[in-house]
Amino acid sequence: VRVPPESLTAPQRTQVEGEEIPAAIEPPVRAYAVTVPPPTLDDLRADAERLQAALAEQHGVAAAAVDLAVLRELSPRLREGQWWASVAVREPLAAGRAPMPGEPTVWAPLRQEAEIVAVGRPAARTLGLAVDLGTTKIAAYLVDLETGHTLASQGMMNPQIAYGEDVVARLSLAMRAPADAQRMQALVVEALNQALTGMCAVVGIAPEETVEAVVVGNTAMHHLFLGLPVEQLARAPYVPAVSSALEVRARDVGLHMAAGGYVHLLPNIAGYVGADHVAMLLATEMHRAAGVVLALDIGTNTEVCLANHGRLTSLSCASGPAFEGAHIRHGMRAADGAIEHLRLVGDRVEYQTIGGAPPVGLCGSGILDTLAQLYQAGVVDVRGRMGEHPRVHDVEGVREFVVVDADERPTAGAGTNDRRLAITFTQKDVRELQLAKGAMRAGIDVLLAENDLVAAEIDRVIIAGAFGTYIDVSSAMAIGMLPRLPLDRFRQVGNAAGMGAKLALLSRTRRLEAEVLARRVDYIELALVTGFSRVFARAMYLG
Amino acid sequence: VRVPPESLTAPQRTQVEGEEIPAAIEPPVRAYAVTVPPPTLDDLRADAERLQAALAEQHGVAAAAVDLAVLRELSPRLREGQWWASVAVREPLAAGRAPMPGEPTVWAPLRQEAEIVAVGRPAARTLGLAVDLGTTKIAAYLVDLETGHTLASQGMMNPQIAYGEDVVARLSLAMRAPADAQRMQALVVEALNQALTGMCAVVGIAPEETVEAVVVGNTAMHHLFLGLPVEQLARAPYVPAVSSALEVRARDVGLHMAAGGYVHLLPNIAGYVGADHVAMLLATEMHRAAGVVLALDIGTNTEVCLANHGRLTSLSCASGPAFEGAHIRHGMRAADGAIEHLRLVGDRVEYQTIGGAPPVGLCGSGILDTLAQLYQAGVVDVRGRMGEHPRVHDVEGVREFVVVDADERPTAGAGTNDRRLAITFTQKDVRELQLAKGAMRAGIDVLLAENDLVAAEIDRVIIAGAFGTYIDVSSAMAIGMLPRLPLDRFRQVGNAAGMGAKLALLSRTRRLEAEVLARRVDYIELALVTGFSRVFARAMYLG
Repeated sequence: VRVPPESLTAPQRTQVEGEEIPAAIEPPVRAYAVTVPPPTLDDLRADAERLQAALAEQHGVAAAAVDLAVLRELSPRLREGQWWASVAVREPLAAGRAPMPGEPTVWAPLRQEAEIVAVGRPAARTLGLAVDLGTTKIAAYLVDLETGHTLASQGMMNPQIAYGEDVVARLSLAMRAPADAQRMQALVVEALNQALTGMCAVVGIAPEETVEAVVVGNTAMHHLFLGLPVEQLARAPYVPAVSSALEVRARDVGLHMAAGGYVHLLPNIAGYVGADHVAMLLATEMHRAAGVVLALDIGTNTEVCLANHGRLTSLSCASGPAFEGAHIRHGMRAADGAIEHLRLVGDRVEYQTIGGAPPVGLCGSGILDTLAQLYQAGVVDVRGRMGEHPRVHDVEGVREFVVVDADERPTAGAGTNDRRLAITFTQKDVRELQLAKGAMRAGIDVLLAENDLVAAEIDRVIIAGAFGTYIDVSSAMAIGMLPRLPLDRFRQVGNAAGMGAKLALLSRTRRLEAEVLARRVDYIELALVTGFSRVFARAMYLG
Repeated sequence: VRVPPESLTAPQRTQVEGEEIPAAIEPPVRAYAVTVPPPTLDDLRADAERLQAALAEQHGVAAAAVDLAVLRELSPRLREGQWWASVAVREPLAAGRAPMPGEPTVWAPLRQEAEIVAVGRPAARTLGLAVDLGTTKIAAYLVDLETGHTLASQGMMNPQIAYGEDVVARLSLAMRAPADAQRMQALVVEALNQALTGMCAVVGIAPEETVEAVVVGNTAMHHLFLGLPVEQLARAPYVPAVSSALEVRARDVGLHMAAGGYVHLLPNIAGYVGADHVAMLLATEMHRAAGVVLALDIGTNTEVCLANHGRLTSLSCASGPAFEGAHIRHGMRAADGAIEHLRLVGDRVEYQTIGGAPPVGLCGSGILDTLAQLYQAGVVDVRGRMGEHPRVHDVEGVREFVVVDADERPTAGAGTNDRRLAITFTQKDVRELQLAKGAMRAGIDVLLAENDLVAAEIDRVIIAGAFGTYIDVSSAMAIGMLPRLPLDRFRQVGNAAGMGAKLALLSRTRRLEAEVLARRVDYIELALVTGFSRVFARAMYLG
């Protein structure tokens, strides 16, 4: 029975996305309004040199290099603007600066030189693009680099999905067929260019006024975006081509921004713990927490970090795509008509759908609720075996639980009750979920063991990512995906990786901090953990 | 009458090109042989980081950034080379370094960061490309950056000639039609790519092993090569888009070299005194000379510099293409069959041709000799009027001097003497030459006047450029193109600009010196010199 949204317990959400930005705004690119004296027979300096001199005289900005692509536009721009222009100057990090007390000096492989990356119309704003490049979804944000405000945002599917749903499939393809790797690179850049154009249209500026970008993603998305080789990433021992933070020209990857604009990429930690994880750490600031903090970014791969009084340990679990609705009989992505929450009341199922639309299938949070309710009602036992219930039927030897009867669905004719039109949850679906939640819980258990901790000692659990935002934490605890803890220890923070990308876009100090964080994290390769298969087997039990 | 080469006085040539390179070799790119430990489950560092660490441990080279294009090749390269590689590291200039005593601190708009620009096969050499990009001709040199030796060289026509013979024609076209500007850019780069491929084939390496290039040319060629706007260069007051030295990625201009390779461009001085002039100063070292040195690079535009005890003054004269054979009835470029030297003995003309081939026309040095001989024989008077001589005829009211009779030419039938098949030198040709030599001499006279000097005080005259190498200095003095001075004060040094490009390719100190030189030169804009037209009119007189 479909019920109104208020009637089912909705999780408390503390969206990092919605919070005020805590960091000081100190963007790598700043714009200066400059008036340039035109050349005369008595003043024959070149256009670039007269601009540099004006910048120094009017703003005290020391002579900055000018990128070739900017030089190609400069002379006509100055004349069109009647010798009045907005000059975007990029002032990268100082070398060897250590932003955190007690930290070793940071090796920052970044350009040391101030540089003019754009010359625009006199009143141009300085805007930046922050991107969380997920395997399934991409989130893009257009940010005002002066105020820190997010002016527009856009979510979209990662078009590389056409080449494989998960990371492994895409890497295998890229290895076998370099042309496909190039096509995947082009596709994702095309999507970003479209998103940028769309967001700029909303704000009423040209994409060329975007002077800087920060892109975060897992290591595979990072490599495919940059066109880096992936063979060494796809084969044991799974090493990245590069881990450190990178600054690449937007034009070198095909992004259409300001002529000399850069894309900054946060560092990767390992083959399966990427820059998006670093971005999450940056956004949650868990390394500054006094106690024990566990953070999860749930996805096809779930990255988990445990901060034990400032000591960071991370790993990646192959949780699979079940929570994205894949490999589940009636699973679907979170879209209108997806059952997102569900409660079993005796023989009755009460559910709510996204957008209040007629039910179409089960999205991740609905799948989680279903298993939790079935387990709590004793319909599914601790080993995941589906037992007897008025709504459980045997269909060709496979048990399935009817979530929504056919006659509740408008697609079925009135009065008919064709079981094939029902929305069901099968014994096989239970097994898929056990694998997914087992992988995640095993990761958590390994982290606790490595730190000589038990679950009860965790002071806070941060759940990041789109799926994590919408799950019912009680359900996750009920099936043993998350350790049992008081509900007030959990924070569901939304897209922390996207937030981290924004912070890195707005602050040079945060970029340095990200470098430090990436080097500070102890990475655990699960393949090397002795007895891992036993831990994993145990973690698959429900409850 | 054609005579053997020895019978006519050939000028003494002191080719800078042939001289040993005086500067210490301190190239911006050095190669290091590195053996890299392969990744294992216990050593999961990324490929780039393990390479950087190996470079630091084995050679003490501090962590260098890695260009994106290098990262795209790095992982497979390391594996193909079985973890053994040659790593090309670019270590640019230190900022604020002043190479000459008493000089102000140099502002060098160069990258400050060491960078890995190529990862090659274990035994790869580090080669560089030096280019003198002339309006008419291009000279390219493949240089070993370790030994300083020139391994191969190639001369070719500038293919932009199809778009206009001189600078002004090409600039006008580029202004009117941006697509043609792009095409001109592509054409010259294509020519350089072909030259590089050809030279590399001679040496037996791949063009991708060329890690650095230096390109010099006049300001217009510099701008067209880089794809910079030229409108401000083509219109008064004729300012460059940029004057300072530039470092651009080879890929950003389309040159196919090492993945991360750079092209260094020496600074320009003014709209019509470009980086090739700076290269000439660098090669001749005239700024170090104690006395008074005059240097000319003769071409369609002739750049002249006067060093007066270290004080440098330069200007550009619009000498036109007459010395390249253009606008001269039987003028031609220096090719087989061109009359390159000539003497009038009574009624007889003794000449020698390039390659000893039957005469086809007159190249620059032959044209110069012809006018000098006619003037010295009294056939042409001081005002340039052609008088009587057995070889002078009136053809449709225009006087012409027959250099080679039709019956001396194999193209004419034996015994025929059709005057239309003769090689002649016309009254109009005399006028063209007067304009050319007048422009050049006027420039010299202005420089002397600005320095309060008379011609006799010049201690040395350096004549650079292809044409200047082959002229008979006595002839040039005879017609008043050059001031009358003892012959031993002249040096014909060949392609000094190309030599300067090589020096800048081999030495970071020389690059800094070039920056200092460019800023040290006082540039004279002839349009601003009061009474210039009078000086010019006087300079057109012969003798």
